[in-house]
Amino acid sequence: FFREAADQKPTPGLSTGLAWTPSGGEILFIEATANPGKGSLTLTGLLGDSMRESAQAAMSYLKSHAASLAIDPNRFDKADVHIHVPAGAVPKDGPSAGVAIVAALVSLWREMPIRPGLAMTGEVTLTGRVLPVGGVREKVLAARRSGVREVILPIRNEKDLTELPPEVRQDLVIHLVAHLDEVLPRLFESDRATQHDNHAASPERARLERSTRSRGRVTPHPLPTAAPVRSR
Amino acid sequence: FFREAADQKPTPGLSTGLAWTPSGGEILFIEATANPGKGSLTLTGLLGDSMRESAQAAMSYLKSHAASLAIDPNRFDKADVHIHVPAGAVPKDGPSAGVAIVAALVSLWREMPIRPGLAMTGEVTLTGRVLPVGGVREKVLAARRSGVREVILPIRNEKDLTELPPEVRQDLVIHLVAHLDEVLPRLFESDRATQHDNHAASPERARLERSTRSRGRVTPHPLPTAAPVRSR
Amino acid sequence: FFREAADQKPTPGLSTGLAWTPSGGEILFIEATANPGKGSLTLTGLLGDSMRESAQAAMSYLKSHAASLAIDPNRFDKADVHIHVPAGAVPKDGPSAGVAIVAALVSLWREMPIRPGLAMTGEVTLTGRVLPVGGVREKVLAARRSGVREVILPIRNEKDLTELPPEVRQDLVIHLVAHLDEVLPRLFESDRATQHDNHAASPERARLERSTRSRGRVTPHPLPTAAPVRSR
Amino acid sequence: FFREAADQKPTPGLSTGLAWTPSGGEILFIEATANPGKGSLTLTGLLGDSMRESAQAAMSYLKSHAASLAIDPNRFDKADVHIHVPAGAVPKDGPSAGVAIVAALVSLWREMPIRPGLAMTGEVTLTGRVLPVGGVREKVLAARRSGVREVILPIRNEKDLTELPPEVRQDLVIHLVAHLDEVLPRLFESDRATQHDNHAASPERARLERSTRSRGRVTPHPLPTAAPVRSR
Amino acid sequence: FFREAADQKPTPGLSTGLAWTPSGGEILFIEATANPGKGSLTLTGLLGDSMRESAQAAMSYLKSHAASLAIDPNRFDKADVHIHVPAGAVPKDGPSAGVAIVAALVSLWREMPIRPGLAMTGEVTLTGRVLPVGGVREKVLAARRSGVREVILPIRNEKDLTELPPEVRQDLVIHLVAHLDEVLPRLFESDRATQHDNHAASPERARLERSTRSRGRVTPHPLPTAAPVRSR
Amino acid sequence: FFREAADQKPTPGLSTGLAWTPSGGEILFIEATANPGKGSLTLTGLLGDSMRESAQAAMSYLKSHAASLAIDPNRFDKADVHIHVPAGAVPKDGPSAGVAIVAALVSLWREMPIRPGLAMTGEVTLTGRVLPVGGVREKVLAARRSGVREVILPIRNEKDLTELPPEVRQDLVIHLVAHLDEVLPRLFESDRATQHDNHAASPERARLERSTRSRGRVTPHPLPTAAPVRSR
Ligand SMILES: [Ca+2]
Ligand SMILES: [Ca+2]
Ligand SMILES: [Ca+2]
Ligand SMILES: [Ca+2]
Ligand SMILES: [Ca+2]
Ligand SMILES: [Ca+2]
Ligand SMILES: [Ca+2]
Ligand SMILES: [Ca+2]
Ligand SMILES: [Ca+2]
Ligand SMILES: [Ca+2]
Ligand SMILES: [Ca+2]
Ligand SMILES: [Ca+2]
Repeated sequence: FFREAADQKPTPGLSTGLAWTPSGGEILFIEATANPGKGSLTLTGLLGDSMRESAQAAMSYLKSHAASLAIDPNRFDKADVHIHVPAGAVPKDGPSAGVAIVAALVSLWREMPIRPGLAMTGEVTLTGRVLPVGGVREKVLAARRSGVREVILPIRNEKDLTELPPEVRQDLVIHLVAHLDEVLPRLFESDRATQHDNHAASPERARLERSTRSRGRVTPHPLPTAAPVRSR
Repeated sequence: FFREAADQKPTPGLSTGLAWTPSGGEILFIEATANPGKGSLTLTGLLGDSMRESAQAAMSYLKSHAASLAIDPNRFDKADVHIHVPAGAVPKDGPSAGVAIVAALVSLWREMPIRPGLAMTGEVTLTGRVLPVGGVREKVLAARRSGVREVILPIRNEKDLTELPPEVRQDLVIHLVAHLDEVLPRLFESDRATQHDNHAASPERARLERSTRSRGRVTPHPLPTAAPVRSR
Repeated sequence: FFREAADQKPTPGLSTGLAWTPSGGEILFIEATANPGKGSLTLTGLLGDSMRESAQAAMSYLKSHAASLAIDPNRFDKADVHIHVPAGAVPKDGPSAGVAIVAALVSLWREMPIRPGLAMTGEVTLTGRVLPVGGVREKVLAARRSGVREVILPIRNEKDLTELPPEVRQDLVIHLVAHLDEVLPRLFESDRATQHDNHAASPERARLERSTRSRGRVTPHPLPTAAPVRSR
Repeated sequence: FFREAADQKPTPGLSTGLAWTPSGGEILFIEATANPGKGSLTLTGLLGDSMRESAQAAMSYLKSHAASLAIDPNRFDKADVHIHVPAGAVPKDGPSAGVAIVAALVSLWREMPIRPGLAMTGEVTLTGRVLPVGGVREKVLAARRSGVREVILPIRNEKDLTELPPEVRQDLVIHLVAHLDEVLPRLFESDRATQHDNHAASPERARLERSTRSRGRVTPHPLPTAAPVRSR
Repeated sequence: FFREAADQKPTPGLSTGLAWTPSGGEILFIEATANPGKGSLTLTGLLGDSMRESAQAAMSYLKSHAASLAIDPNRFDKADVHIHVPAGAVPKDGPSAGVAIVAALVSLWREMPIRPGLAMTGEVTLTGRVLPVGGVREKVLAARRSGVREVILPIRNEKDLTELPPEVRQDLVIHLVAHLDEVLPRLFESDRATQHDNHAASPERARLERSTRSRGRVTPHPLPTAAPVRSR
Repeated sequence: FFREAADQKPTPGLSTGLAWTPSGGEILFIEATANPGKGSLTLTGLLGDSMRESAQAAMSYLKSHAASLAIDPNRFDKADVHIHVPAGAVPKDGPSAGVAIVAALVSLWREMPIRPGLAMTGEVTLTGRVLPVGGVREKVLAARRSGVREVILPIRNEKDLTELPPEVRQDLVIHLVAHLDEVLPRLFESDRATQHDNHAASPERARLERSTRSRGRVTPHPLPTAAPVRSR
């Protein structure tokens, strides 16, 4: 079968989102480029108001957190950013691409490709909270069908995972997050390497990751940043 | 149960508003960020005309009262402000978030988080008057349901409090205000500490506060600023 | 009863207009602020095209007549003006707030509050003419009901005064004007003091004022500026 | 009766146009002001697209012909022009106010009031041609009713004059023009004085003017500028 | 009868186009002016999207070919261009005025009036190709009726000439063109004089022109510029 | 018959696209010009939102890849680009002209005409991927009918080629591409010459090209850039 996600060449500025359509889930590529300019933001792909606003919020989040994201804040007003979401003839809307848009922008500014096989969905807010989204079941099925191996989901969508067939949960590593602070360390190979080192130093953590993987997901474990944890 | 308000990490630029929907009241977070820029104002969250205008009025109020609010007025035209109101897919409108928007902006510029557990509703005008709003009963019930402990309401909505069950009025401290001058001293811990010192020095006031608390609300008492008082 | 007009704290930039609605007349506050900026004009309060244009015309009138209004014309392009008309959720339209908008702006730039208890209605043109408006009977009744003691009306609305009950005409001082030149001397206490001095020096005038007051209105008497007088 | 045109105080920037409405003709004041600025053009009075374009064309005509109109062309980009057409609540459209708009702007920039009692109608083009308009009969009747004594009309509307009652044609001096070159010498007293001097020096011309006046109109006679004459 | 085209005074920036309306063809004047400015383009005359785009394309063509058109390219960004198409109350649309708009702009920038009695129709592209248009029969009849003596038409409209009565073809000189390179040498007297000199030096050419004139049109003959030739 | 594509004079900035209409396929010219300016992008030809976005994406792609495309990136913000797609009266939409727009822009900036007889269709993304389009059968038939000899198509449209009659496939060279990296080496004569040199040095490659040509298309062979290949 056609594994579209695996086909996409890893490129800085490119992330994989998940979309819901009446005929099922789909993977969605978010493409971001920055060229010398004056700080404009161009959004294409027949994006609706809510999705355009998600991109504006993502940009503001990056600017506000440039320091902690290791991005030089002086670059923002010397660049024109363009975010495009193919396919060009398909209208798209809604805030659920927020996490993927932030990821594409962080990848762009840090000039590091996102790890292959990683897809994500989730609305983001200006403070970095990750809000729940709809169509999680269809989105996760589409991710797996397209060759995705890891999915980042809002923790408040945890309940939707019970609707997934067991074999899907076993094939995928699912990260449940409540805040962008938990998303960013998972995006790049280098950060991941660092995480594994940390894990190696913490036998207890390593065990936890094994167990969650066997359950088909990773529960949110403590991260260096002070991410609030939501109990249900 | 899920206490959303308590979950929100205290952050400068974040306030808690109250919204009315056909299916009941809801709490609403107002998120404001400021990044280096040229004085633009970006508003997202599918905000309608009236709510966008509330945000413009709030910005103008802050600029006009920068001195008394201890904000450096030279910062306004060097910053781009973004106000976002999640959730991104839910259209919102009306002027009743005015007080919360002003609070978020004051918190942002003073870089002080608003006290946890404090929510507010009320339209504001350019002169700082707080005008009455609709759906107070539903909003207050939603506030309590979400873990809010104090609510700021327009004094001209006092009559709507009689519709509240007694146990709700006992759980919540309700501040009735006629002007933003009465709102601002209640936003931050430090200001509150100062108030308590004042109260300690004024046994009569302390007693008043106790009694009003027992009645489930605080009647508007004289404040340092010359806030006009409305009799009915 | 609730005397809203009396409650409003006198503030530079604040005037009281009169509006007509299907359910009767209402008083309307015009709030104007100026902050350091580049000459922009922000209009909020769900204002329709005609009312927005009235505000633009008022701004242009002020700029053209800055010298005679004792306003430094160099200030205009260094300020962003915001005019707000509460309540934020009520759409408003029509040119009849023109006089009140000019008054709010003159008050703002001269940093002098308008005399308490003074309300006004009337369309204005770029040359300062005051044109007649609709709903005068309802507007005047609303003014009295709200604690207003003086009303400025277009002279071409004089005929509408015959519809007022005698007790209303006795309670209110009504100024009939044909031009903004006749409006401006009535706005501020200091100007009024000057007028009274003039009156003291002119026994004939004093008598005229008494008599007109007893008739419930002041006929337009000669003013320092060369205001054209319309005969009917 | 109410002679509105005679009431209007002569002011630089003010001209009198003629409008057609379903209920008959009306006089229309065009008000223009210029304030220090950057060359913007503000148009108010609920003007439709065609009337807005007429104003843009009038501005461009003035700029292109500044030299021959004795206007300093360097002033245009240092001024913001505002053209307002009362009454503010009445939508207006169509190109027939073109001549009056040009006249108001010439009066504004030359700081000379237009001669009292002079009204005009006619579309203008960028090259200064005066094109015919509709409703001439109603417009001329309205002009006379309002105290107008002279009317400038497009020469291609000459045929419409036959519909006028003889007494109207005897009361009014009507100037038929094909180009703005023929309009401008008739606007100001000083130019007229010059014309009369010329006439005094030319007995033949003086006689012609008498005779045309007795016929209720002035046929277009040779003018200093090279205005093309249209034969029919 | 009224020969409108002959009435129009030759002026730099003025060209004569041809329009099709449901009631027959009409001549159309394109008026262009340039005033000191910053490179803006104002389009008036109730022009539809397609006609506005034609004007934008004409401007871009001029800028790209300034050198070969003997226009100083530095002038473009120091001028505001205004193109007006009377009559102001008649909506107009479509790309067929492209050739006439280019002609008006070339005439404007070269400050040379277009030869009297010359009208034209044809869509233009950014590369200067002249595309066929509709309503050629009606347009040509209207041109002749208005006193036009020469018409420039797209060569791909040649077939439409067979619909013309023989007397019309004998009265008019018709130039069929495939590219703007063939249009520009026909616009001005001086260029034409040069052409005639050339013709005088080339007996064969002179004969060709005679014969084509007798057939009521001029076939496109070789021109100095490398205009592509379309075979059918 | 009329071979339109062959008629078009080769010009830098001009490419040939393929369009689908309800009445069949058509060739479409993309015209791009650049004039001294400030980086604006003008799009004409009654282009719909999706097609306008394609042009924006094409511009961003060029800017991001200026170095590898041998374009001086400093030129972009000193030029105003205009892209026009005749015919001016025909509305056009959709993303399928993306490849042709990129080609026109590369041709423009490199000042090299695209090889005659080459047409192309395909959506492009910001990362340079070429996405499949609709109407391939009709487009290819139209290309051949218009004198096109080579067509660039998205590789994901390969299946649509089976619908073509054998004689069409034998007349045309068809290039199937997955990325813009594979398009650009085919646009210009000089690059092609270089390719042939490369091929001469690689007997195996030469053979492959011969065989594919005999099958009426060129399969995508390895290119210098690392273009991901999609398997189906
Ligand atoms: Ca696209
Ligand atoms: Ca968190
Ligand atoms: Ca959002
Ligand atoms: Ca108060
Ligand atoms: Ca408001
Ligand atoms: Ca108004
Ligand atoms: Ca007056
Ligand atoms: Ca108005
Ligand atoms: Ca003339
Ligand atoms: Ca017009
Ligand atoms: Ca066009
Ligand atoms: Ca590829």
